[in-house]
Amino acid sequence: MSKYLSKRFDKLTPYIPGEQPKISNLIKLNTNESPFPPSPKAIAEAEIELSRLNLYSDPECTVLLKKLSEILGVKEEQVIATNGSDEILNFAFMAYCDNNTGVVFPDITYGFYKVFAELYNLEYKEIPLKDDLSIDYRDYLNAGKTIFIANPNAPTGIYLGLDKIEEILKSNPDNIVVIDEAYVDFGNESAVKLINKYNNLLVTGTFSKSRSMAGARLGFGVASKEIIKDLQAIRYSTNPYNVNRMTLAAGYGVLCDEEYTKSNLKEVIYNRDYLSDELKKLGFKMTDSTANFIFTKHEKISGELLYNKLRERNILVRYFNKEKISDYLRITIGTKDEMDKLIKNIKEIIREVL
Amino acid sequence: MSKYLSKRFDKLTPYIPGEQPKISNLIKLNTNESPFPPSPKAIAEAEIELSRLNLYSDPECTVLLKKLSEILGVKEEQVIATNGSDEILNFAFMAYCDNNTGVVFPDITYGFYKVFAELYNLEYKEIPLKDDLSIDYRDYLNAGKTIFIANPNAPTGIYLGLDKIEEILKSNPDNIVVIDEAYVDFGNESAVKLINKYNNLLVTGTFSKSRSMAGARLGFGVASKEIIKDLQAIRYSTNPYNVNRMTLAAGYGVLCDEEYTKSNLKEVIYNRDYLSDELKKLGFKMTDSTANFIFTKHEKISGELLYNKLRERNILVRYFNKEKISDYLRITIGTKDEMDKLIKNIKEIIREVL
Repeated sequence: MSKYLSKRFDKLTPYIPGEQPKISNLIKLNTNESPFPPSPKAIAEAEIELSRLNLYSDPECTVLLKKLSEILGVKEEQVIATNGSDEILNFAFMAYCDNNTGVVFPDITYGFYKVFAELYNLEYKEIPLKDDLSIDYRDYLNAGKTIFIANPNAPTGIYLGLDKIEEILKSNPDNIVVIDEAYVDFGNESAVKLINKYNNLLVTGTFSKSRSMAGARLGFGVASKEIIKDLQAIRYSTNPYNVNRMTLAAGYGVLCDEEYTKSNLKEVIYNRDYLSDELKKLGFKMTDSTANFIFTKHEKISGELLYNKLRERNILVRYFNKEKISDYLRITIGTKDEMDKLIKNIKEIIREVL
Repeated sequence: MSKYLSKRFDKLTPYIPGEQPKISNLIKLNTNESPFPPSPKAIAEAEIELSRLNLYSDPECTVLLKKLSEILGVKEEQVIATNGSDEILNFAFMAYCDNNTGVVFPDITYGFYKVFAELYNLEYKEIPLKDDLSIDYRDYLNAGKTIFIANPNAPTGIYLGLDKIEEILKSNPDNIVVIDEAYVDFGNESAVKLINKYNNLLVTGTFSKSRSMAGARLGFGVASKEIIKDLQAIRYSTNPYNVNRMTLAAGYGVLCDEEYTKSNLKEVIYNRDYLSDELKKLGFKMTDSTANFIFTKHEKISGELLYNKLRERNILVRYFNKEKISDYLRITIGTKDEMDKLIKNIKEIIREVL
């Protein structure tokens, strides 16, 4: 770091994204990407934009937001589009956390919440998960701080029911509750249906997972009109053209192809169940994940060893060298073929190691 | 705004981007976009990425930064890529301005500097331009604050020589000097050649203007390795995948086609001279702009009237309702045909009004 960097960043620990290696023939199950290409309609819409990239993108994201609000069943002014969902989370930290309003989130969750809390020098509290790695909603009642909950949570994949979310919302009327639904589409109900009931709710989402668009960078927020107005003010004060033309178009395209998304979701859910069943037979235990990944540990082989052995075989999964979860691996659900190769390799590793 | 919004944003005045109307047959000369489509190589490279949007973009932006650093004649670790140049400016405000280190910039310049200064509640000082609307470099000597200078300046288009920039750098060894070169390619020398000489220099650039990629959102910063390390830490703490796959590829593509860029630049410069000469004959005065726009006022017709009259005729230019420059219009340089239509319409308006 240079001597010029503001002293408030003295202890900055940036987020470390899952590795993006440039190895061919890799089975990449480490960053929860979709194994399916984007919808042909997304591709077609984005392609049209290529020849007019000389013109700025629409800062109001009109076409995308109209379609998205229809699909979500909300009003256009209740949605905001961002450059990936990290940006909507960033805006939420900027808007709703400060020296007076600290922030709480689970101790095991999406790693970026802590990065934002430290980036903005916020007072933050990490609330421990229960022993079974689930969230105890009672820990968030009357929190008196801004609350961030990934639902389903990462990297456990465990979902917290909307009835529990409602209890949290009700008991924190003076604080914003952010429900980060990056993984909600893989079999769960969204909290978006609650936004007209609770003024303090902000639901965030992404096109990276269920809509196969991680590389396009498109996130969004859904909330009351007033909350969205706050977030738009932050957006127009940092990067009004935050979403590029191609991504706006691709996002619109995929929303016009709900059949494609639904069919992919079905396959991911099928493969998740298949992988879980097979791994259980091999001595694995896992959380009850309803995301596009499983979170699993073997009864006899350490997470780190298994991670390294898989890596040697060109299979990349995610390992967190962190207390409470260092035995676990987070494995993204891929195609049936990828799951079969993974299972085959794990069987070989077990034979080799045990 | 909601009651939840942090009180520090009480006086937030977001940036207002130039209008992006959805009117067809519009001659759009209000946001300094390139009139030329992106390079065929940019289009071809971006197109390849469309079918793999399910995979995250490379957070290290390796391929783009290698090529960009070659073209700029610097090392790879001296460059950072961002989601438009607004984002690199944002990172610079975050990294190098705080309660201890305020910021200075001209009173007439890119409007976003003031927005960032207010967003971060910084102590800032707007230094008046000289009467001829140029920057007096002496006003920035020993400033003792972080300095932002657009060079050429916006919306005047006036360029400050590198010898003057060097004086500013030398006299502010303890402060970062940001030279925002969004418009430098249209006939001026870049301060990038100074980065190995001055540790306190950060040069920012964009692919929006000279490289016809405003709609793709690609900006960059060039500085010492240490400065870039600071900015990367901020980037990895806010949005590590800030540049999407398509834009990374398009950026690489256009850099492989320098001939195309050079030929477009030549045409813009030719059309700028042509438009200036024609307008002078009609009673206009203008600053000595070396950007892809002119900044001009008529001796007898107010800027506002002319703006409105042109708008009625489906020609959009930029008018700033701001002290000292409210007589002026900023007109983006378009194609020769667009310039001819503009001149024809201005002639008619003059006949109508005077």
